[in-house]
Amino acid sequence: MAIKEIKLDDLNLEEFIKQKTEEISSLVRKGLAVNALSGGVDSSTVTMIGHKALGDRLKTYFIENGLMREGEPQRVVSLFYNLGIKVEIVDARAKFFNELKGLVDPEEKREAITRVFYKDVFGPLVKESGAKYLMQGTNYTDVEETVAGIKRQHNILAQIGIDTEEQYGYIVIEPIVQLRKSGIRKVAKALGLTEEIYNRPPFPGPALSARIIGEVTQKRVETVRKATKIVEEELHNTNAFQYLAILHKDKVTGMKKGKRDYGLQIEVRCWESLDAITGSPTRLSYDILEQLAERITAEVPGVVSVTYNITKKPPSTIEAI
Amino acid sequence: MAIKEIKLDDLNLEEFIKQKTEEISSLVRKGLAVNALSGGVDSSTVTMIGHKALGDRLKTYFIENGLMREGEPQRVVSLFYNLGIKVEIVDARAKFFNELKGLVDPEEKREAITRVFYKDVFGPLVKESGAKYLMQGTNYTDVEETVAGIKRQHNILAQIGIDTEEQYGYIVIEPIVQLRKSGIRKVAKALGLTEEIYNRPPFPGPALSARIIGEVTQKRVETVRKATKIVEEELHNTNAFQYLAILHKDKVTGMKKGKRDYGLQIEVRCWESLDAITGSPTRLSYDILEQLAERITAEVPGVVSVTYNITKKPPSTIEAI
Repeated sequence: MAIKEIKLDDLNLEEFIKQKTEEISSLVRKGLAVNALSGGVDSSTVTMIGHKALGDRLKTYFIENGLMREGEPQRVVSLFYNLGIKVEIVDARAKFFNELKGLVDPEEKREAITRVFYKDVFGPLVKESGAKYLMQGTNYTDVEETVAGIKRQHNILAQIGIDTEEQYGYIVIEPIVQLRKSGIRKVAKALGLTEEIYNRPPFPGPALSARIIGEVTQKRVETVRKATKIVEEELHNTNAFQYLAILHKDKVTGMKKGKRDYGLQIEVRCWESLDAITGSPTRLSYDILEQLAERITAEVPGVVSVTYNITKKPPSTIEAI
Repeated sequence: MAIKEIKLDDLNLEEFIKQKTEEISSLVRKGLAVNALSGGVDSSTVTMIGHKALGDRLKTYFIENGLMREGEPQRVVSLFYNLGIKVEIVDARAKFFNELKGLVDPEEKREAITRVFYKDVFGPLVKESGAKYLMQGTNYTDVEETVAGIKRQHNILAQIGIDTEEQYGYIVIEPIVQLRKSGIRKVAKALGLTEEIYNRPPFPGPALSARIIGEVTQKRVETVRKATKIVEEELHNTNAFQYLAILHKDKVTGMKKGKRDYGLQIEVRCWESLDAITGSPTRLSYDILEQLAERITAEVPGVVSVTYNITKKPPSTIEAI
């Protein structure tokens, strides 16, 4: 079944929320549903709509995969706690790192994360809970990019011919699949989510592993996590669409304390975009760029070089892998 | 023997040229000398001083190692022809690429180039010519960086304990070893070299191979050569100290014609510096940066992403490897 986009101009917020809530209620009826909350605007919106429709019959998990930003699990859980929604943290770090060991190919890394997420972590959780329904924050750009073969979003299954009911034992509900990011932000705001959520820059499904070129190890995640924290602190006030730090595998020559230091390079990207379909690098001032480079090389162990992406999308993509 | 720097303030151009010319004359006497000209300001200056001292008894070669910029051998030779100096092009491309095959470690690549240059190409040339003297454009920054262990310059031998007379059969003369780049430019101008030479941005000894992370193949040299040409065309008017394109080994996701295109990344560096000891990225306008990215991704096959270095030296170095 082809999915029809709802354009921003055609989006009636009240009506959309009412319609989705009713659809979910009438589909799940007295049954149980589960969903995974990452803290991004997409999964947060789905969590709100789902709880509006199902109340306590939606069980929301935060899967701690070890690939999140610093302090993220705790921050997200307390944010939703304040909105009256209970979220359970599931520690699955060992499972993810084990599956990622030795993988360098971006598709293989994505597939490993999808596999662990659905088969090893979510499958068992859904079975335990007795729920037949899984709610997901798939959006229209994800669908488009997966179908076009640009990138396999970890939450696209039906669109590429995977029958989740047969294969994993549950039905997937995607309430915001007809919307792009700008529409989702409006829905999120209308649902009463805080600005921290509805204006939150996008963060990829595979989290920090999508910001690592080459093997994803705990040590390399720690490196990109520290760089990400600095980039988010320094670029928070730019109002850019998205900003990120990428850890490269290539090493470059550097100098520390007057000696050669063959070290790591971090690439910073900061995007102006409305919808993630096209984008341009934000015209950050050189004061900000130099401050980024100085902090990252000083505060992140092993990093001797920082670059800034200057390529538009296309031919670039928003993320590097 | 420690080398003593001649600071810019203490540099008397006329006296320096006179003194070096006399030193070379009295050392070589009626003998023969050879030198290799790369077209950079250092080797060009040495070529001029050498011919001033020795006339035709200095034989100047341009070693075509396959690692030079587009059209460089022909351009350099004709430039010197116009100054009355005959330069012979030696085609050694196959020897260099053969020796570089499979090497990815920066030190190993540098060593391979040094080895081919001295043992396979220059050694035989010197022997054929009967010359006992080899003139080189080593400068004071090269010495410092080699001694500090930051980088092994291919033309530093005595300073790291290699006796060229014993090992290779000739004596090395380094007329500009006490000068830094700014002093050398003044000497070059005083010697009558054209502005294209005396204002020429520095270019590393191992040429484009120093701009390639990973293996140096003819195909990869061709990629970085095309990118270098664009960077030099676009940044020529900035009056920056140095500007360069680096081909990374890491691949990143890109899009071409609406499809995923997992491709190459080029890093651009452009430096403000007086002496190469410290440096800052030039504050290029975003119009220039975007033009660079657009041209490189459009004109260089396989490239989907371009970054700009935003790190100062230190902790960065001018070149990447």
